[in-house]
Amino acid sequence: MKKNNDEYIVIVGCGRLGSHLASLLSKARKSVVIVDKDEKAFNRLSQDFSGFTIQADAIEIDTLLKAKIDKADVVVTTTNDDNTNIMIAQIAKTIYKVPKVIARLFEPSKQKIYEELEVETLCPTVLSAVAFKDIIIGKEMEVD
Amino acid sequence: MKKNNDEYIVIVGCGRLGSHLASLLSKARKSVVIVDKDEKAFNRLSQDFSGFTIQADAIEIDTLLKAKIDKADVVVTTTNDDNTNIMIAQIAKTIYKVPKVIARLFEPSKQKIYEELEVETLCPTVLSAVAFKDIIIGKEMEVD
Repeated sequence: MKKNNDEYIVIVGCGRLGSHLASLLSKARKSVVIVDKDEKAFNRLSQDFSGFTIQADAIEIDTLLKAKIDKADVVVTTTNDDNTNIMIAQIAKTIYKVPKVIARLFEPSKQKIYEELEVETLCPTVLSAVAFKDIIIGKEMEVD
Repeated sequence: MKKNNDEYIVIVGCGRLGSHLASLLSKARKSVVIVDKDEKAFNRLSQDFSGFTIQADAIEIDTLLKAKIDKADVVVTTTNDDNTNIMIAQIAKTIYKVPKVIARLFEPSKQKIYEELEVETLCPTVLSAVAFKDIIIGKEMEVD
């Protein structure tokens, strides 16, 4: 069994996706810190969230240090801006040697940049389109 | 084997999700019509898309009739607005008796309205958050 429970996870961006993920990870008893420059964004966090919030701009190194990025096992970037996500993923991976960095991807064309950084990506649009397709025509019909 | 290939599908909203779904369904040889009030939205459609586009406001009955909603086997609402999606899903289901209506859901709190309409929903935020969680801590650890 993996030793999961002492993992320390930094989430950048407390929008719909970041806040929902923070709650899921909190429920799974992970230590979570979530960063957003907008104080109001933290209102999206559910009652289940037991982690910490940092109100500051994550593209500043000071903010990332405040979030203890140098101690993080996982960094997840979920902001609405691919360039911000790429920049933070790059800092996490190359400067702070964070073992696992995962980024939300808007433009599939940016995938290649992440591959060079060895950052996993997840594209909600693609994921959702495939899920809709599966509901409509069934999983058995492969289209790609 | 299901007789899938003669299905006629109307997609409302040609944003990232709607356009990507339209391309997937086109590749699966479905007859697809996609509606958006913004002409530029159709630029998102890939080369694979072989269906029709209608530039008009889908909350007007005329637009839905132009899209032949009365002949549709499936209607998918993918706009960025839950209320628009609900209204069109309701028209499709109750007036035009479309057999399968699926809606994109932003606010999980609106789920109940769809359940009463017997409309399937898919919430990209929830779907993506779960996918991120699965990457971070693995599928084996159930959190809900």
